[in-house]
Amino acid sequence: MSEASTSFSPSYTITLRINVPNQPGMLGKIATTIGNAGANIGAVDIVDANSSVLVRDVTVDVRDEAHGNVVVEQVEKMSGVEVVHVADKVFLLHLGGKIEVMAKEAIKTRESLSRAYTPGVARVCTAIAEDPKKAFTLTIKSNAIAVVTDGTAVLGLGDIGPEAAMPVMEGKAMLFKDFGGVDAFPLCLDTKDPDEIVMIVKAIAPTFGGINLEDISAPRCFEIEERLRNSLDIPVFHDDQHGTAVVVLSAVINAAKVVGKKLSEMKAIVVGAGAAGLACTKILQGAGVSDIIVCDREGSLHEGRADINDSVKKWFVENTNANNLAVDVVQAAKGADLFLGVSGPNSFPEEALKNMANDAIVFALANPTPEIDPVVAARHARIIATGRSDYPNQINNVLCFPGIFRGALDVRAREINEEMKLAAAKAIADSISADEVCEEYIIPSVFNRQVVPAVADAVARAAVESGVARRKRPMKDRGDGG
Amino acid sequence: MSEASTSFSPSYTITLRINVPNQPGMLGKIATTIGNAGANIGAVDIVDANSSVLVRDVTVDVRDEAHGNVVVEQVEKMSGVEVVHVADKVFLLHLGGKIEVMAKEAIKTRESLSRAYTPGVARVCTAIAEDPKKAFTLTIKSNAIAVVTDGTAVLGLGDIGPEAAMPVMEGKAMLFKDFGGVDAFPLCLDTKDPDEIVMIVKAIAPTFGGINLEDISAPRCFEIEERLRNSLDIPVFHDDQHGTAVVVLSAVINAAKVVGKKLSEMKAIVVGAGAAGLACTKILQGAGVSDIIVCDREGSLHEGRADINDSVKKWFVENTNANNLAVDVVQAAKGADLFLGVSGPNSFPEEALKNMANDAIVFALANPTPEIDPVVAARHARIIATGRSDYPNQINNVLCFPGIFRGALDVRAREINEEMKLAAAKAIADSISADEVCEEYIIPSVFNRQVVPAVADAVARAAVESGVARRKRPMKDRGDGG
Repeated sequence: MSEASTSFSPSYTITLRINVPNQPGMLGKIATTIGNAGANIGAVDIVDANSSVLVRDVTVDVRDEAHGNVVVEQVEKMSGVEVVHVADKVFLLHLGGKIEVMAKEAIKTRESLSRAYTPGVARVCTAIAEDPKKAFTLTIKSNAIAVVTDGTAVLGLGDIGPEAAMPVMEGKAMLFKDFGGVDAFPLCLDTKDPDEIVMIVKAIAPTFGGINLEDISAPRCFEIEERLRNSLDIPVFHDDQHGTAVVVLSAVINAAKVVGKKLSEMKAIVVGAGAAGLACTKILQGAGVSDIIVCDREGSLHEGRADINDSVKKWFVENTNANNLAVDVVQAAKGADLFLGVSGPNSFPEEALKNMANDAIVFALANPTPEIDPVVAARHARIIATGRSDYPNQINNVLCFPGIFRGALDVRAREINEEMKLAAAKAIADSISADEVCEEYIIPSVFNRQVVPAVADAVARAAVESGVARRKRPMKDRGDGG
Repeated sequence: MSEASTSFSPSYTITLRINVPNQPGMLGKIATTIGNAGANIGAVDIVDANSSVLVRDVTVDVRDEAHGNVVVEQVEKMSGVEVVHVADKVFLLHLGGKIEVMAKEAIKTRESLSRAYTPGVARVCTAIAEDPKKAFTLTIKSNAIAVVTDGTAVLGLGDIGPEAAMPVMEGKAMLFKDFGGVDAFPLCLDTKDPDEIVMIVKAIAPTFGGINLEDISAPRCFEIEERLRNSLDIPVFHDDQHGTAVVVLSAVINAAKVVGKKLSEMKAIVVGAGAAGLACTKILQGAGVSDIIVCDREGSLHEGRADINDSVKKWFVENTNANNLAVDVVQAAKGADLFLGVSGPNSFPEEALKNMANDAIVFALANPTPEIDPVVAARHARIIATGRSDYPNQINNVLCFPGIFRGALDVRAREINEEMKLAAAKAIADSISADEVCEEYIIPSVFNRQVVPAVADAVARAAVESGVARRKRPMKDRGDGG
C-alpha cells in the first residue's frame, strides 16, 4: 500500500471526553500515551473541574476507525483516567442533516402574511397560470435544482440505497449553495426502475430549473439521462459522467501546455469502461484527442472481444482503438502521452507506466486508492493528478458542477450541451495563468473562488451562442453566490 | 356584496416611481390626486433629485388591480408628472421565489469539505446503510417534509397546474419554517394521475420525515392520501382536509364554551360536501357532535338522492342525517346550533340563518366571499368565524400545520392519527384562557407564538400515547423554531 494510507485524515477526527485526576503532569502522560499510539493531538479543552477531577476534551486526528479504537483503548488503560465519551467530528457535523430550507423574508405581520400567502399569493399564481414562463421570475425555479439519485452507485460504496445516499446528496447541496449560490435539494428515490425514475423526474420538473443526476449506476444512468434530456426543457446533467469529464479535460488542457504537446497529437489510454470513462473519452475526442484506447479488466476494447454486450462497450469499440488492437493494459500504454484511470485501485501496473511516452501525464482518479500509487508514478511520469486532496492536482467535480449550473440557470438554458461543457473546461483551465501553470499545478484549488464565476460566465455565454438560452443576461438578484 | 370588498388590502400595494417638477407644492397635489382616486398613501421616498426634477417613490394601498390602474391613470394625467414605473409589492416579494436552501455550516476549508463531503461522508453513508433508522439522526429526514401538490385545487383558483401552484407551496414552506422550524420543500407535480402521484410520493419518501399533501382536488385526494398512509411509515397529511378540520374543531370547542352548550348536545349543519366538509364532519363527530346534516347545492344528503355516485357522498348518507331528512338548506338549518360553511360564496341564505337555534354559531369559511355576509350574519348569530383576516375569529390552517408536523417530527411519528388531530385542536382552543374566550375571540391569532409549541407538545404526547411515536422525547437540537 502507498504511504497515503498511513496519513491522518480530517475525515477521521475524534474527541475524547475524559475524567483525569486533577494532578500536575497528567496531561503530559495522556499526550504521551496518544502519541505512542501513533495519533496527533489537536485541541485540548477543560470542560469542568473540581479539586479532584478535571474533565477534558481531547481532539485527536487518527488514520481510520480501527486506529481510533486503538487510541481510545490505550487511554482507557491509563491508571485513574476514565473515557466518558468519544465523539466523532464527522458524525457530529451530520447530526440533524447538513442543509435547511429558509424563508427569504420572515413573516412577522399580517401584511407580510397576506403578501407571501393568501390572499395576495393568488394574484401571483394567476399570473403564472396565464403565462407559465413567469415561473422563472416568480418562483424558485430560476435558481433551484434537484439532486436526484437512486443510491445505486454512491461514492465507492455501490448500491447502498436511498437513505444512505442522503449525506452525499446533502453535501452536494451544500456545495451548490456555498460555491455557486444554487438552491439544490436532494431527492433520494426508493426505486431503481429507469421507467419510474424518468417518470418521477419529469413530474417534479416544474419546481426546478435543472436536474443533477447523481450516483446512478451504469448502464441505467445513460438511458435515464438520455430520456430525460429528450423530454425536459431544463438541463439534465449526470455529474458523475460529465462533471468528471469537464474537470479531466481542463486538467489535460493545462498538462498539455506544461509538456508542450498538442491535444490533437496526443495518444491516450483510458482504463475504466464505465460511465465516467465514456464521458471522459467523448469530451477528450471533442477537444481533439483522437488516438484513444480504452481498457477494462480484460484489456483493450476491440472488435474481437466476445463480451461486447452492452451499448457502452459497443460505443467504445466503434469510436476508439482505430487500429483495433487486442492488447492488455501494459501493451496498450505503449507510447501513450496520457493515462486516464477511472476504474479501481491498482489497475495500472508500473510496467504499463514504463511503456508510456516521454513526459507522461498520469491521471489516476480511483479514490481513495488510485490506479497506480502516485509515489511510484512519480518515478516515471512528469505530471500526476489524482482524485485525492492530499496530493497535488486533485481532479474534483466541485470545480465544475456549481459553476456549470450557475451559468445554465443564469441564462435559463434548456440543456447543458457539449459547447457549454467545453467552455466550462476551458474556463477552469484558464483560471491558472500561463506563468503559473506547472507540473504540480495544472488544476486550481476547489477553494479558488474565481473559478465558479469564470465557469458560470463562460457557460452562460456558450449557452447563448449555441442557442439553448432563454435569456441573454443573468438576473441581477441571483442569490448570495456565484 | 359586503363592505369588505371595498377595503384596502395589504395584498394590493403598489409603488409608483414618478418624475415630479422640483417645485414647492407638488407633493400636495399628487397626494390630493391619489386621495381623490380613493387610495391611501403609505411611504413617500425621494430616489433622486436635481434642480428641475425630483424622482419619488410613492407607495399606495389600493383595493384591487382595477383600482390600481385608475390611480396610476389619474397621476399620469397630472401636468408635468411622469409615471416612470409601477411596482407591485406582492410581485416584488415573489421575485426569484420566497425560499432558499442553505448549508447549516459553511465549507471554507479542506477539513470541512472532507467532513461534509468526500471522503468523510462515506462513513456516515455506511452507518446508515447498516442501520437505516440512523437516517433520522444523520440526515435532514428528522426535520424535513415535502409539500406535494398537483396544482388541481389551488386556493379558490382551481386547476391552475403545477407551475402556478408553486407560490402557494413556497408560502407554505415559509410558514412551516417560520412558525414551526420545519424544513419544508415544495414539489409541484406535472401529473394528475393518482397512481403516478402515489408512486412518486412513495419514491421520494426516504428523504423526508413527513408528507404534506396540498390543494389536490377531490375525490382524488382521498384515494391518494389513503393509499399513501397505508404504504408509508411517515405522516401523510392532506392539509386542506385535516388542517381545516383541526382548526374548525378548536373554534367549535371555544364557541361552545361561550354559548354554554355541550358538543354532544349540539346540532350542526354543514354546507359543502367536498374534502374539507368530509374531514370537518368526521372530526366533529369524533369530538361528540352527533346530529349533523350535510348539504350540497341540491340540499341535504340523504338516501333518496339519485346522485349519490361517489364514496364521499355515500359516506355522508351513511354517517350523517340520522333521520334521513330530504330538505333544502333553509329547512336543514332548523334548530341548528352550528352552521359550518366549507363551500362557495353566498350559499347560506339569511332565511336559513333565521331558522337556527338561539346563540347560533356561524362559521362561513368560503374565501374571499363567505357563505353568508358576516355583516348580515351578525344580525342573527352570536358567534361568527370566517376564513378572512379582516373579521374576528379567522379560521386559518396556519394555526395547525406547523405545530402538528413539529410535534409529529419531534417524536418521529409514523402517522398523524385522530388522537393527534384532536390533541392539536384542544391545544389551539386552550391557548385562549377561560377568562379571555368570548364571542369575538374563540380562536387565537396566527401570530400568537405560544400556539405552535403548545400544539407540538400536545401532538407529540398524543403520538406517544397512541403508539405511533418512534421516540419519546424531541431531539434537543431541532432547528430554529417551535
